[in-house]
Amino acid sequence: LREQAETDRPNEETPDVGIVMGSDSDLSTMAGGKGKRPGAYAALAEELGFAEQTDYTDAPEARFTFETFVVSAHRTPELMYAYAETAEDRGLDVIIAGAGGKSADLPNMTASIAYPLPVIGVPVQEKSVDSVIGMPQGAPITAVDAGKSFNAALSAVQILSRQYPELRERLVDYHRDLQQGVGEVSRDLHE
Amino acid sequence: LREQAETDRPNEETPDVGIVMGSDSDLSTMAGGKGKRPGAYAALAEELGFAEQTDYTDAPEARFTFETFVVSAHRTPELMYAYAETAEDRGLDVIIAGAGGKSADLPNMTASIAYPLPVIGVPVQEKSVDSVIGMPQGAPITAVDAGKSFNAALSAVQILSRQYPELRERLVDYHRDLQQGVGEVSRDLHE
Amino acid sequence: LREQAETDRPNEETPDVGIVMGSDSDLSTMAGGKGKRPGAYAALAEELGFAEQTDYTDAPEARFTFETFVVSAHRTPELMYAYAETAEDRGLDVIIAGAGGKSADLPNMTASIAYPLPVIGVPVQEKSVDSVIGMPQGAPITAVDAGKSFNAALSAVQILSRQYPELRERLVDYHRDLQQGVGEVSRDLHE
Amino acid sequence: LREQAETDRPNEETPDVGIVMGSDSDLSTMAGGKGKRPGAYAALAEELGFAEQTDYTDAPEARFTFETFVVSAHRTPELMYAYAETAEDRGLDVIIAGAGGKSADLPNMTASIAYPLPVIGVPVQEKSVDSVIGMPQGAPITAVDAGKSFNAALSAVQILSRQYPELRERLVDYHRDLQQGVGEVSRDLHE
Amino acid sequence: LREQAETDRPNEETPDVGIVMGSDSDLSTMAGGKGKRPGAYAALAEELGFAEQTDYTDAPEARFTFETFVVSAHRTPELMYAYAETAEDRGLDVIIAGAGGKSADLPNMTASIAYPLPVIGVPVQEKSVDSVIGMPQGAPITAVDAGKSFNAALSAVQILSRQYPELRERLVDYHRDLQQGVGEVSRDLHE
Amino acid sequence: LREQAETDRPNEETPDVGIVMGSDSDLSTMAGGKGKRPGAYAALAEELGFAEQTDYTDAPEARFTFETFVVSAHRTPELMYAYAETAEDRGLDVIIAGAGGKSADLPNMTASIAYPLPVIGVPVQEKSVDSVIGMPQGAPITAVDAGKSFNAALSAVQILSRQYPELRERLVDYHRDLQQGVGEVSRDLHE
Amino acid sequence: LREQAETDRPNEETPDVGIVMGSDSDLSTMAGGKGKRPGAYAALAEELGFAEQTDYTDAPEARFTFETFVVSAHRTPELMYAYAETAEDRGLDVIIAGAGGKSADLPNMTASIAYPLPVIGVPVQEKSVDSVIGMPQGAPITAVDAGKSFNAALSAVQILSRQYPELRERLVDYHRDLQQGVGEVSRDLHE
Amino acid sequence: LREQAETDRPNEETPDVGIVMGSDSDLSTMAGGKGKRPGAYAALAEELGFAEQTDYTDAPEARFTFETFVVSAHRTPELMYAYAETAEDRGLDVIIAGAGGKSADLPNMTASIAYPLPVIGVPVQEKSVDSVIGMPQGAPITAVDAGKSFNAALSAVQILSRQYPELRERLVDYHRDLQQGVGEVSRDLHE
Repeated sequence: LREQAETDRPNEETPDVGIVMGSDSDLSTMAGGKGKRPGAYAALAEELGFAEQTDYTDAPEARFTFETFVVSAHRTPELMYAYAETAEDRGLDVIIAGAGGKSADLPNMTASIAYPLPVIGVPVQEKSVDSVIGMPQGAPITAVDAGKSFNAALSAVQILSRQYPELRERLVDYHRDLQQGVGEVSRDLHE
Repeated sequence: LREQAETDRPNEETPDVGIVMGSDSDLSTMAGGKGKRPGAYAALAEELGFAEQTDYTDAPEARFTFETFVVSAHRTPELMYAYAETAEDRGLDVIIAGAGGKSADLPNMTASIAYPLPVIGVPVQEKSVDSVIGMPQGAPITAVDAGKSFNAALSAVQILSRQYPELRERLVDYHRDLQQGVGEVSRDLHE
Repeated sequence: LREQAETDRPNEETPDVGIVMGSDSDLSTMAGGKGKRPGAYAALAEELGFAEQTDYTDAPEARFTFETFVVSAHRTPELMYAYAETAEDRGLDVIIAGAGGKSADLPNMTASIAYPLPVIGVPVQEKSVDSVIGMPQGAPITAVDAGKSFNAALSAVQILSRQYPELRERLVDYHRDLQQGVGEVSRDLHE
Repeated sequence: LREQAETDRPNEETPDVGIVMGSDSDLSTMAGGKGKRPGAYAALAEELGFAEQTDYTDAPEARFTFETFVVSAHRTPELMYAYAETAEDRGLDVIIAGAGGKSADLPNMTASIAYPLPVIGVPVQEKSVDSVIGMPQGAPITAVDAGKSFNAALSAVQILSRQYPELRERLVDYHRDLQQGVGEVSRDLHE
Repeated sequence: LREQAETDRPNEETPDVGIVMGSDSDLSTMAGGKGKRPGAYAALAEELGFAEQTDYTDAPEARFTFETFVVSAHRTPELMYAYAETAEDRGLDVIIAGAGGKSADLPNMTASIAYPLPVIGVPVQEKSVDSVIGMPQGAPITAVDAGKSFNAALSAVQILSRQYPELRERLVDYHRDLQQGVGEVSRDLHE
Repeated sequence: LREQAETDRPNEETPDVGIVMGSDSDLSTMAGGKGKRPGAYAALAEELGFAEQTDYTDAPEARFTFETFVVSAHRTPELMYAYAETAEDRGLDVIIAGAGGKSADLPNMTASIAYPLPVIGVPVQEKSVDSVIGMPQGAPITAVDAGKSFNAALSAVQILSRQYPELRERLVDYHRDLQQGVGEVSRDLHE
Repeated sequence: LREQAETDRPNEETPDVGIVMGSDSDLSTMAGGKGKRPGAYAALAEELGFAEQTDYTDAPEARFTFETFVVSAHRTPELMYAYAETAEDRGLDVIIAGAGGKSADLPNMTASIAYPLPVIGVPVQEKSVDSVIGMPQGAPITAVDAGKSFNAALSAVQILSRQYPELRERLVDYHRDLQQGVGEVSRDLHE
Repeated sequence: LREQAETDRPNEETPDVGIVMGSDSDLSTMAGGKGKRPGAYAALAEELGFAEQTDYTDAPEARFTFETFVVSAHRTPELMYAYAETAEDRGLDVIIAGAGGKSADLPNMTASIAYPLPVIGVPVQEKSVDSVIGMPQGAPITAVDAGKSFNAALSAVQILSRQYPELRERLVDYHRDLQQGVGEVSRDLHE
């Protein structure tokens, strides 16, 4: 990671959103999957046209991309430190960090080390909410509700959309589809 | 508000951050004050060089500004609706919305109506956290911990700093001062 | 909805009770159904002789009727606003509003906008109770316990019964049957 | 009480709203008073023009009135029973019942016995909410949030207002004043 | 029940322990049964030699007996009142009263009305504990933990055993068997 | 204590109720005192005519007496063990055991060791309730609500009253006075 | 146990870690097993090379060993007392004590009686955490999170490792393997 | 710190216990002081004969010593990292780590980085307990109850006492004094 941070790649070729999580058991919440509600992957890849970048040196064609890492605050603290410290230099604009358990330290520590990059915390379990949200004054993080990695992705793109009007349009399109769905449900009740 | 939204003012003269709260009793939490911990005002005005804009048609000289409104979701729903609906057209880039009580609907409703503008919710009381954070899929909001309007302001400026490198520098300067303070405390223990 | 509000239909032909909910996933709680406990529909239609009115311009023969809408406070705020604002003009006497999640804003917002119409909130989940019940002074709502849409319907008819003695009789009849059921259970234990 | 129930007084001369509470220590919550937030008394007497009726056989001149009783479910169960059983015959249209503690049984028992009269429960303390709201299917009660006897009074008058258009006007007037208050606060911030 | 209270039967022929519960759905907790942990029935009938008395006028041969009633505080308040008021005159020495839900009023009301008879409350669900235990000063009840009707029966017999040394012996015998069971488990681990 | 247990004193001269608590800081809750609500002492000594016995070998004249000990489950486990083990032989009929903190083990351990003597647990703090009430099957204890040592004393005397009709009368007298107090409060509101 | 305590066996032949639990139903949490997460047994026997000693007089060949006992604080208080009182004399260096339920007294009582031996409490259920951790000043215990007997074993060996450098090496080896596992998961995401 | 870690000082001259905390506002809990309950300092310095070492290169005469640092996980993550990483090399045998707030990450992160050194976490506030105790499998920490830094110090010395019999004696002496204090309180009640 530190090597990548030192390379000087054009902004278009680095990932825009970084997704980190504390354990591979968090994948179903962060990415969604079989029998699970859609997660951050679904929001980014299916609704908003992002591509996943799995090789830092070989960017996909899509203009907007995200990457994913599993780093544990408690089991691999050095790896977590390295990821957060190099994030801005590696070209990321916003990080989505998820962790479960009652000591969900990954989002907090990532926000502290990656500062001033904006970090959106995702408590993977209900019992992780307090630990993710409770930062002291001077150490900013914002959080979504337990398990809502889909919404964290929308919020991340809201941040990016202040710079990229194209993303603002994608968000508006997504919302229009969503509202039509609710409208149809109500109409069905009256037929 | 609707008239202001229709005017076509240059971006530099409109407020960048909007602060709304549900009641004037929330002012001490949102803005800080006597005997209270510093709030969003202190972060913006004292630490990060923002000016408060009290007259929409007469911008202060400072490049970055914020404005403040008291609108109640439950007592003045029309006013809340109008503020959120016109926010983006009035030139805001991010909204900080605070509310207290167990039905702290203002941040949620503002986020829903002002979409796709990013909204940071501030639960004014501990018991407001659940209501602020618990949005359904497709309706994004991010939140800080109860009473942490100071941090909400830092997060808001983190969002703006992706566009304005000048703000990124201010955030870094603030952080350096903060860390020196902690370092001095520890050193005092050893003398 | 706004068109309907402007028509001038006789009171006997408009719905007396309006049932709104935030999502079609709330239907099983609000209306009951397979494998679920009886809901507001069962109370109104099976126990108290109400008919469902699915077409506003074509009232059923039954004197007392109810209607149902799905409107989301966070995903379709305009629709919610329109329903609550026109409710009294459309002839409703009482609204039962149910929502789930931790930010169950629909009952609160409906009560605020439909005021002075009485609104009975139904928290669809246990975690929705705080959000539904916690309104500030001056913004009245009353609520039933989580999932108790059946009781909300009884309470709605208690309100109507102050005007319509016929409904008071139906409530008394329902209660007599209920008490006989409990009596029989106790008697069975002694045989 | 039972004697009063047997008398046949004209509806205009009996109290419309009955306020019962479990202990005289609940008076400051139910009625308001020095250093306390306004309660049901303030809502009824100061905002909505009701008079308190302290002598059942000597009605005040005001058209709409309320009465107050202290009856303890656990210390004077017979008295509670008598009050609830005779309430409808004594001419009441709605009861507001408040109790504190974790076993706040008075509102529940009153609602069960006074059925089919609508009863609005007021949990006097936060810890009383669960006990007041948790009624089983078939035993209706609606409740306001802890300590919100002011709102309970508004809700009671919303119920009465379905019969008495005069009360509907008073509710609308009260609301207009309330909204102007919020509007002025917001305006003050901009001067 | 009131007739029975007026009869003058010898103490040996009346039930010693009364078990009341709010709903037949509480039977599996109060009495135990298939797939459930043993309840008060198992403790009384299987461990301590009590017989169930199902006909008040025809006592079983066993010296110590118990009876069971289903009475709902909220659905049949009159029946509950009658049971509690006549309990002492009908010859009972202690009542075990169980109820579920968040408004578990049956044990409290029974204790208030049957006073000075000792009443042991059984919260049928975890969420019933607060409501059962929270009586105000001057209104005594004691309670066991959620679902522990087996222990409530042991406690009831502890009360009776102050008068009847025979029951004290049965309690000691039961305990000896229990301790041998634990001892054997530990020994098994070392073989 | 063990010596006392071996003496063979007449039942009239030994204490009937034993009060134990885990720390002298529990005294204000268990015994009441300045600025505190009345406790077990007030119930026994002032309302029900018990005398405190401070010297085991020198009984007061009153027929019914209680004694008090401070024994800590965690700091003096041997003393706790000795008290509970000898309680029945020392002539006690019921024990009231109070403890504070989240690990309020004294009531539980006393109940386990003093078995089959009935033990009433008093959680001295709200956070002690779970620890006091949560005994496993086969290990009976009953408990009152947090801080309600006054009610624990009433319950203890209810147990004794099954043997001593004189105590039953005292309980009834106490209750009559209590009810008159509530009645007077309600009457004052109507004058 | 008391006999064993009086024998004078060489330190190498006595168990180093004692595992006690309140019920055989705690075995699956404390020891792990089918369909359960690995427990203290797995940590000690599979990861750190300990052997179980089931016969005190016949030590296994392994230098470091542990033993297991089931003793109930509430059902067999004497046995619990004997185990804790003799633990240090029987050669143990640290005790891991687990219990479930809301009154999880075994770890606390064991720590109080076995003092000054270090005791690590394992709350077997989430609801046992408060009871295990809440000891008063002067009565030390440390605890792990609910169900984390695996970690309790690691902590116990951390204590032993201050004396035995060999155990320190085993802990470091275990950790290296663990970190490689997390690293591989993250790498898999990028292939 | 890293320089100190590389020096090769004799074990007797390095601190045995390290106390770290997240903020100087935690000092009153960790060290005790005016109007606060005694903390870890009081336990170590006043009860167990430890001296504070404020200059790493100039050890006090006392054989056993402790040192204190303020390092914030969220505001000075590098400093925290450096302290934990060098702790074992700087000669510490056990760390006591305290932090407040809902995201009390300092104890967890310190335990993860300082591994295999034993770390005892002190939640400075009640709301910090979950965050301190909730570590995932493979990342050991043990914790005391909220605010109980005094007990954490006793536990730390229990760990050291396995190596140093002298400390075991000091622990036993402290306990004897404590028990005499409880005994005297109970005796005072009987005079």
